[in-house]
Amino acid sequence: MDADAKKTILRMIPYGLYVLTADDGKGAMGAATVNWVTQTSFNPPLIAVGVKADSGAYAALKSAGGFVLNMLGKEQKGLAFAFFKPAKIEDGAISGQGFTRGSNLAPILDAAIGAVECTVRAVVEQGDHHIVVGEVTGAHLRQAPQGRPDAAILEMKDLGDNVFYGG
Amino acid sequence: MDADAKKTILRMIPYGLYVLTADDGKGAMGAATVNWVTQTSFNPPLIAVGVKADSGAYAALKSAGGFVLNMLGKEQKGLAFAFFKPAKIEDGAISGQGFTRGSNLAPILDAAIGAVECTVRAVVEQGDHHIVVGEVTGAHLRQAPQGRPDAAILEMKDLGDNVFYGG
Repeated sequence: MDADAKKTILRMIPYGLYVLTADDGKGAMGAATVNWVTQTSFNPPLIAVGVKADSGAYAALKSAGGFVLNMLGKEQKGLAFAFFKPAKIEDGAISGQGFTRGSNLAPILDAAIGAVECTVRAVVEQGDHHIVVGEVTGAHLRQAPQGRPDAAILEMKDLGDNVFYGG
Repeated sequence: MDADAKKTILRMIPYGLYVLTADDGKGAMGAATVNWVTQTSFNPPLIAVGVKADSGAYAALKSAGGFVLNMLGKEQKGLAFAFFKPAKIEDGAISGQGFTRGSNLAPILDAAIGAVECTVRAVVEQGDHHIVVGEVTGAHLRQAPQGRPDAAILEMKDLGDNVFYGG
């Protein structure tokens, strides 16, 4: 296989940016910027997320059996970069961001334009990131988009001409 | 759960457009436009695709154990719409498109800007679409993009202001 061709072709897949959070209520908490996300079913509503297998967010969601996917708005580059680093809850904020909790305890960022609560239905433990399949069990729309919803989200290409996660 | 909020939030996920093809060499052949695609691992390179469970493409890829994901270019709306309909191979063309075959027999469209050959590594049989996990085993770059690769692909929002597949 031509590795350069593989990289270029896989980078054709467009991505939004999200902060995935999870908390098992027993000390395992994680929050991380992710981009490998797709819906996979209408009924029930399922999404699949590729989550780094050695990350705190992955450990937390496995233990919790659920997670929240926070959608970042077009102008929220700072949030995307903030959650590239390991997250901590301090003074009632997570990495400096105010939040509430979903019914599965996962943090819902006050600043997110929307968030879905998910229950883990399957995990495919293959590769350096594992595939977490979540059923959407709650939805929190913070800012109704003016136009298409997919025009309101922060995208990978908005982070810089040479910023990619994939390939 | 607020169904309208759920729909709007899930529609924030940006999507490219692809033609997924498969052929088991024993009469089961399928080709269908799909958009629920994400990479899920770098090493090995894995992608996940949500494929309608009652479709010919799904039956063909399950039988074949592999598939090709053809990337559509920014101007190839016609191709996306062509493969919304059941595909047939006639006169050496599939739905009127010239093609070659990957090493797994799946059609690689001459018109695609790129294509990856995949071997099926897992299937999550949940929901109205099932999650097909493919390891990328071959890559065919037909047109090297001038700028970012994710600026070269046809996106869902390019199909029309009110065209969505998700929510």
